[in-house]
Amino acid sequence: MLTQSGIDAAMTRAFELAALGPARGVNPRVGCVILSADGRVIAEGHHRGAGTPHAEVDALSRLSPGEAEGSTVVVTLEPCDHTGRTGPCSEALIAAGVARVAYSVDDPGDASSGGAERLRSVGVDVIAGVRREEGEILLDDWLASARLGRPLITVKWASSLDGRVAAVDGSSRWITGREARADVHRRRAAVDAIAVGTGTVIADDPALTARIDDRLAPTQPIPVVFGRSEVPAAAQVRAHPRGFLTSPGNALPGEFRALHARGIRSLLVEGGPRFASAVIATGLVDEVHVYLAPLLLGGERTAITDIGVSSISEGMRLAVRETLPLGPDLLLIASPKGRH
Amino acid sequence: MLTQSGIDAAMTRAFELAALGPARGVNPRVGCVILSADGRVIAEGHHRGAGTPHAEVDALSRLSPGEAEGSTVVVTLEPCDHTGRTGPCSEALIAAGVARVAYSVDDPGDASSGGAERLRSVGVDVIAGVRREEGEILLDDWLASARLGRPLITVKWASSLDGRVAAVDGSSRWITGREARADVHRRRAAVDAIAVGTGTVIADDPALTARIDDRLAPTQPIPVVFGRSEVPAAAQVRAHPRGFLTSPGNALPGEFRALHARGIRSLLVEGGPRFASAVIATGLVDEVHVYLAPLLLGGERTAITDIGVSSISEGMRLAVRETLPLGPDLLLIASPKGRH
Repeated sequence: MLTQSGIDAAMTRAFELAALGPARGVNPRVGCVILSADGRVIAEGHHRGAGTPHAEVDALSRLSPGEAEGSTVVVTLEPCDHTGRTGPCSEALIAAGVARVAYSVDDPGDASSGGAERLRSVGVDVIAGVRREEGEILLDDWLASARLGRPLITVKWASSLDGRVAAVDGSSRWITGREARADVHRRRAAVDAIAVGTGTVIADDPALTARIDDRLAPTQPIPVVFGRSEVPAAAQVRAHPRGFLTSPGNALPGEFRALHARGIRSLLVEGGPRFASAVIATGLVDEVHVYLAPLLLGGERTAITDIGVSSISEGMRLAVRETLPLGPDLLLIASPKGRH
Repeated sequence: MLTQSGIDAAMTRAFELAALGPARGVNPRVGCVILSADGRVIAEGHHRGAGTPHAEVDALSRLSPGEAEGSTVVVTLEPCDHTGRTGPCSEALIAAGVARVAYSVDDPGDASSGGAERLRSVGVDVIAGVRREEGEILLDDWLASARLGRPLITVKWASSLDGRVAAVDGSSRWITGREARADVHRRRAAVDAIAVGTGTVIADDPALTARIDDRLAPTQPIPVVFGRSEVPAAAQVRAHPRGFLTSPGNALPGEFRALHARGIRSLLVEGGPRFASAVIATGLVDEVHVYLAPLLLGGERTAITDIGVSSISEGMRLAVRETLPLGPDLLLIASPKGRH
């Protein structure tokens, strides 16, 4: 017989299945367990990444025709109700004749949500929010980003203790030490995309790869170059293993939404100062990473220029979440006050 | 009989006596023990501050005429050889007929050193460097400052994470929180003098007192206003409990030596940005205290302006010695590389 504790146990297994999927990319990690009317597990499934079947459809595919009739589907995310690269899961579940759907987290998408309503409308018993907090932790950045409708945005800079990114003559190698630079590469490898302004591409010609011990990291963020200047033909970013995207840089909030629609959940803004300041000025910043080198430079080349703040009360207040020593340098990780 | 261990024991007592003297001021803390020819303690003395007898003379004054004849004087600092507000100790010891002087730390002063040489020249047995490291620790800032011939200089500022001391409109209250501001006052109370530029006195009218729980601290640093503009008649600094000094600010190294000659061993440079930068540019900075508030402001009002650095290789490299969280803020204490 199917009980509440049977659904709970199936959800535990669905969480495990979800974790088998890829942590990054357009789609979230989702797991699914199908229970027979008497509570036995009859199928399992999970999502393996964009273009592959959703977890519910993956699980249904393990069953013979008619076998799902009267079953209970336990799934970590609300079944979708839209046609993307695959058809809507709501319709697949209805077609299979399932009696009940128990899910953990509501689908946050504008286009994809509504599956629960659709299922209820044809008489399927829907139980929403089963161990929702655990389900949300599993979805992590994907969920936060989906709710915001844009990537999670981290603005990063490395400066001297007095806030400079270069000396008066423009020289900047190296402000921070080896350990701090290695940390940047590790964090690059963990995001979907890196954003820079065209000015930086032209002036510094960065490779924008994630390198670990001087080798390319197994995962690479895609570079996004913001601004209307042409990326030079010989620019290193043109040789990036993921290619690169461009974005005009004159209407940032919409451009961030467009990146999200392309599956970019996390964006690391690496500069230069004018572009980083423009991003800060949008107010759409989730984290600030400041690598502080114990060095004084003076002069005009500040890490941050104008962020649209005119008085102290308008200043962007942050809360420091971590202070990490990295060799002689410090990494301060801060978030806007009240965010997250 | 007088033994090495007898001298050692007398030096331990001399250190204790020294510690009875005032920790700050023109003169160092010095203790003295006089041993008879057979090794008994016959007198003790210590210095009680500028204008009072030096430790050796204080100890000799406890003896009857002739009683010091053939004695061993154990003292924490080399006896002085010059006439200041009191006469030279070397001559007083010779006149008393002492047979031997054992001291810990060489006198670092240009004018006051030479006592050991003078004593030896008349046949007094001199033992230098007895437990010198302990003696130096006891003398602390006084000794470092005496060796440098200037006060120990700390440059302090409070800035946003992006290195600003004010927003574009000049508003700056408050960048840092209560805890950081209280820390500044505690550190003010521990130095001999606070330095500011006239620009700051005119613009911000600081009181430059050390306040603890809104009351004046028992010890107050003397304010030194650098620059050629007049201190306004209504300036709060004119009401400072210690009065205030002025210094032209156009030849800083010599002005620092002059402050040292007035007995100022430690100087806390509090700004504004131009004056702090000018002090940094002299290279005569022993510590940098940066109170960093988790706040972004942007704009032109940087904590540090021009410090005479044009390329990254000329940057002033520091080593962070402490990172102290103070409420939401951080205090970074750093020293120039290779200093101390």
